[in-house]
Amino acid sequence: MKRQEFINQLMERANGTPCERGEAFAPANIALCKYWGKRNAELNLPVNSSLSISLGSLGTRTVVRYAECADGVFLNGEAAPRAFSARVSAYLDLFRRGRQFFEVRTENTIPTAAGLASSASGFAALVKALDELLGWGFSLCELSMLARVGSGSASRSLFDGFAVWHMGQRADGMDSFAEGFSEDWKELRVGILEVSNAWKKVGSTEGMNRTRETSELFEAWPAQAQCDYDELRTAIAAKDFPMFGKTAENNAMAMHATMMAAWPPLCYWLPQTVSLMQEVWCAREGGLDLYFTMDAGPNLKLLFLEESRAAVKALFPMVQVVEPFA
Amino acid sequence: MKRQEFINQLMERANGTPCERGEAFAPANIALCKYWGKRNAELNLPVNSSLSISLGSLGTRTVVRYAECADGVFLNGEAAPRAFSARVSAYLDLFRRGRQFFEVRTENTIPTAAGLASSASGFAALVKALDELLGWGFSLCELSMLARVGSGSASRSLFDGFAVWHMGQRADGMDSFAEGFSEDWKELRVGILEVSNAWKKVGSTEGMNRTRETSELFEAWPAQAQCDYDELRTAIAAKDFPMFGKTAENNAMAMHATMMAAWPPLCYWLPQTVSLMQEVWCAREGGLDLYFTMDAGPNLKLLFLEESRAAVKALFPMVQVVEPFA
Repeated sequence: MKRQEFINQLMERANGTPCERGEAFAPANIALCKYWGKRNAELNLPVNSSLSISLGSLGTRTVVRYAECADGVFLNGEAAPRAFSARVSAYLDLFRRGRQFFEVRTENTIPTAAGLASSASGFAALVKALDELLGWGFSLCELSMLARVGSGSASRSLFDGFAVWHMGQRADGMDSFAEGFSEDWKELRVGILEVSNAWKKVGSTEGMNRTRETSELFEAWPAQAQCDYDELRTAIAAKDFPMFGKTAENNAMAMHATMMAAWPPLCYWLPQTVSLMQEVWCAREGGLDLYFTMDAGPNLKLLFLEESRAAVKALFPMVQVVEPFA
Repeated sequence: MKRQEFINQLMERANGTPCERGEAFAPANIALCKYWGKRNAELNLPVNSSLSISLGSLGTRTVVRYAECADGVFLNGEAAPRAFSARVSAYLDLFRRGRQFFEVRTENTIPTAAGLASSASGFAALVKALDELLGWGFSLCELSMLARVGSGSASRSLFDGFAVWHMGQRADGMDSFAEGFSEDWKELRVGILEVSNAWKKVGSTEGMNRTRETSELFEAWPAQAQCDYDELRTAIAAKDFPMFGKTAENNAMAMHATMMAAWPPLCYWLPQTVSLMQEVWCAREGGLDLYFTMDAGPNLKLLFLEESRAAVKALFPMVQVVEPFA
């Protein structure tokens, strides 16, 4: 099934009222059970379900208006880089009627393409803004499928708090959507340790494809991810922080492991990444309840509870602490 | 089957003449297809066959004599560290007749326990020296099985050049031995990049066990290793260096990947390890035929041909170049 057919099928459900402009915010999200590997690249259908936590006010705010004779794409107040504009315009192509153009003004409160998932909040904010502008009147579940077509992990950025993205089974992708879930965890903290905010040399789609095609170890990934997904749901329901942290960290390490076994080898880590990881392991051996996760980039996201905040701050003075349920 | 029974069974084949002393040298070896995971921990029987290259004059020289009332174990001219002596004495227990003691003087030309496989050359030199002292008159194949009981990878250090260690199928371990093979490759170079010669916090036996027990990705390892083993044999026969280098590097990365997905995560890399890996990848993208392998430690072993020596030296001035077939 083609991307356009998928969109057309969804558009038959549209029943809202168009506006002159659309404006929306979507949070970044950190996957605790990662989206890694596509069963369908055209529709961004994954080989495993994933689970994330959204980062509250860290994310993307986007305003969409109609434009006269060409798309205009602005990022943080300036004309966006070419690759960025091209990706947005290609996505807008899916929704144009005739010679219709858009102005997209997007502001990130997080570094772009540094493994802090700004394409996730970007596409999520864009579909919400388009929903208002074009008057689709879609549910968050429907919007999550539209966002998914732009960037898989964007499906989870429609929600605050915890979100799951069901991998789905259908070839047409109509059952591969995200939803929030009602559990919260007031004491949970995410600590961002930025190692580099440079643009990635190998994007995550390319990274996934290379891994799926060349890494022998990848064959064990979908089963591990399913298992981690179940464990995380259990840990969240029980507020079992050690189980939660262990499962998230192990899932991230396993994802990076599948990449390292790819050819050419794919290693998003920088020397400082290893040094921070070793510090976390050392602190944990010393009794601190501290875990981390990492996306396809060099940055660490620490996971801890409010009671450990002072100890974490002492260990990593540069940490940026997020309260997902504030 | 117990270790002692295995030894007793082999000892029935002994038919040589004892001497007053035994002296032997064994080379270190670098696995190109790694030994990683035991199917029998008591007998050091592996889950996969492995393949290595010996490092010529880098290795261990050992002299064994009878001693009066206790074992004496000396490493590089000094009384050996307690853990080292204890391991040697426990191994000697397998061969004692009555109240028999030994003096073992061992000299390493490579750092001990820094992932440069000195336990391999150590046990290989020890069994060769014992063969002379105790007059077993064993073949290299039989000695490789004795060495294997001391340290799995020691089985391959009985040979110069390339060696293979057949995993074997039998429960009693009598078909799990190493042998050299006649192929040589005069132009092949191994470049040692030492990041640290500190003692390892987690020994390789513990690392293997933890990985086998907790890493979901490990289930894909034995099949990958078998495939890499076959590819390396093909590449060596054809003197296909890119295939050789790629297979060895991918095998090492996959081994480290299985560890990272273990719990607690096992990462032998230091920040500088990642930095050196990135330099190799960068040089290769720039056209240099350069690959690396790594054991359960932070050091890199570069693989290249004589024609690239100057370029490699320029890139890594601290590299120690070994000519395995000199």
